[in-house]
Amino acid sequence: MSVSFDQRVANFCAGPASMPTAVLQKAQAELLNWQGSGMSVMEMSHRSSEFMGIASKAEQDLRKLMNIPDNYKVLFLQGGASLQFSAIPLNLLKGEADYLDTGIWSKKAISEAKRYEQAGLGKINVVASAKDSNYTTVPPRDSWQLNDNADYFHYCPNETINGLAMFDVPAVNVPIVADMSSCILSSPIDVSKFGLIYAGAQKNIGPAGLTLVIVRDDLIGHANLVCPSILDYKNQADNDSMVNTPATFAWYLAGLVFEWLLEQGGVEAIYQQNLLKAQKLYEFIDQSDFYQNPVNKDNRSIMNVPFTLADSQLDKTFLAKADEAGLLNLKGHRTVGGMRASIYNAIDLATVEKLIKFMQQFEQTSV
Amino acid sequence: MSVSFDQRVANFCAGPASMPTAVLQKAQAELLNWQGSGMSVMEMSHRSSEFMGIASKAEQDLRKLMNIPDNYKVLFLQGGASLQFSAIPLNLLKGEADYLDTGIWSKKAISEAKRYEQAGLGKINVVASAKDSNYTTVPPRDSWQLNDNADYFHYCPNETINGLAMFDVPAVNVPIVADMSSCILSSPIDVSKFGLIYAGAQKNIGPAGLTLVIVRDDLIGHANLVCPSILDYKNQADNDSMVNTPATFAWYLAGLVFEWLLEQGGVEAIYQQNLLKAQKLYEFIDQSDFYQNPVNKDNRSIMNVPFTLADSQLDKTFLAKADEAGLLNLKGHRTVGGMRASIYNAIDLATVEKLIKFMQQFEQTSV
Repeated sequence: MSVSFDQRVANFCAGPASMPTAVLQKAQAELLNWQGSGMSVMEMSHRSSEFMGIASKAEQDLRKLMNIPDNYKVLFLQGGASLQFSAIPLNLLKGEADYLDTGIWSKKAISEAKRYEQAGLGKINVVASAKDSNYTTVPPRDSWQLNDNADYFHYCPNETINGLAMFDVPAVNVPIVADMSSCILSSPIDVSKFGLIYAGAQKNIGPAGLTLVIVRDDLIGHANLVCPSILDYKNQADNDSMVNTPATFAWYLAGLVFEWLLEQGGVEAIYQQNLLKAQKLYEFIDQSDFYQNPVNKDNRSIMNVPFTLADSQLDKTFLAKADEAGLLNLKGHRTVGGMRASIYNAIDLATVEKLIKFMQQFEQTSV
Repeated sequence: MSVSFDQRVANFCAGPASMPTAVLQKAQAELLNWQGSGMSVMEMSHRSSEFMGIASKAEQDLRKLMNIPDNYKVLFLQGGASLQFSAIPLNLLKGEADYLDTGIWSKKAISEAKRYEQAGLGKINVVASAKDSNYTTVPPRDSWQLNDNADYFHYCPNETINGLAMFDVPAVNVPIVADMSSCILSSPIDVSKFGLIYAGAQKNIGPAGLTLVIVRDDLIGHANLVCPSILDYKNQADNDSMVNTPATFAWYLAGLVFEWLLEQGGVEAIYQQNLLKAQKLYEFIDQSDFYQNPVNKDNRSIMNVPFTLADSQLDKTFLAKADEAGLLNLKGHRTVGGMRASIYNAIDLATVEKLIKFMQQFEQTSV
């Protein structure tokens, strides 16, 4: 970065992503001495009453925010969503499993599950792929080759890189497993429609290094013998996610984010803000001939907005000038090119408006 | 905790453990705005030049501190040492492996490896056990039933719970794998004598949620097909520990601890302090009839000092009064009972002297 900022920048990074400033300020104030305990949260025994209180409050707040039914366990794990790509077949695959391919993260989940097919643990079916549309449209539901006897159906409702989203929970007859890394807590969902929801924390939850798994009771307790004990949902559920030392400081920060979200009015309130942010940005892109977003309008992510410039030779100048204006990390993923604005919960409407204004000005000075 | 502290306490927790105050102060100062970047380290893309710089500096400093040869990779992973209990057989076990049992953590590693024996991945031999001495003495080297064709020999040079330590690297003819969670960076070691060293961060390295693996090149690239991709050393080594998003903030804090350690004079200097701390505490315990440590003098840990009171009915009073004096987390592990003072690198000599003084006074007022 060429510029030195006295203040905090607008950070559109896809992840690790912006945290609410108020959360960081609270963490900063109590970093050396949490609530008069004389120590940092990161210095506390995970078995201490202080940390158990922090951990349990975070879980209760998340349950409130997502209205999680009692027959679901909430696990605070490590390793990222990518480690869950392995843990899911290791815990749930007995015969066959269905996967929907809607983008790069779906494909990674499929590729890891296929390794377990190769190892003889079961069969992995790809029920449909968005590849034909170059990942701009979700294949229609009636084209999916579903297996009603599958152990589970896996999909990624928000593809971070392609900006492709699915807002309705698919109607399938088997337990639904969803990678919600980049959309969890961005809009209200009916948890009871899912068998298992998982998410890396580093977008809408907290710092990287924490992974949430919300899993229905009946899916717990079926791990394959080769599943590492730490990845066995039963082991973690029976031990309140403390089979070994959890990522305590990340768990605490997630709790602060949950508190902040409740203060904002909860998921429904942040969803209204998210809708408005996305709507304004897409509207601006659509009315312009200078910027484009290729995604089918029904499948446009409200969290990750990729866009290209009509003249890609201007990409570098766009990014350099955005940097100067304090609008950072707008570069698109290398596999997609162009730009991407990730506008998670911590990015407010004013910041999106600032981005739109910059894009307007850049267009005016470039044409 | 009944008392509210204005200042930081002396925290003898076995882990997550005390961090150097100077490290926490630095992290606090730059929590919202790292070096004028306008963002927190935890908000940075792990692929950004800023974070890549932080990550690489941490690795270089660790290499300097431990004098790590070039033919070893350093991996910054997640999941704790307990996930390595699985990753090690999943990466290294082809035929047979030897394990030495010196305490609770050795036994956990053995128990997890045995699961892979059960799954048909290979055979696990326990070469000797300290059980007969109730884990107070390491079985003599000539009693070990070693297998010269083993893929590796696994041991735990410092048992956190029992306070049992091994200071010489065992003379065996196969690659040595060592769980150094509670002794890494506490004394100089010759890395070239090991095949693989691993350690959870939450004692001498940084916050929980980070796991270090130092592995010799020739042991990389042999993972079993059922090994989750995230746990495959080759995959992580080829991607500089960024197969997926690493625990960025924990990695940064580890880097600050490494910087602090270099400022203290490096591992040799901290070792001299550690020796002095342990010596003073054991000397005090040994000269007293009121306190006892059962461990064979040659095997006494310089990091974790368990001790009992002659009259265990005084345990509760001891702990309550210690709390009042700002000496926290001295309760022993439930499997061992009594007390335990974990005196990792961040605990200075003055703090140990304060503990000894308190123990003296408690003894005087109790007899």
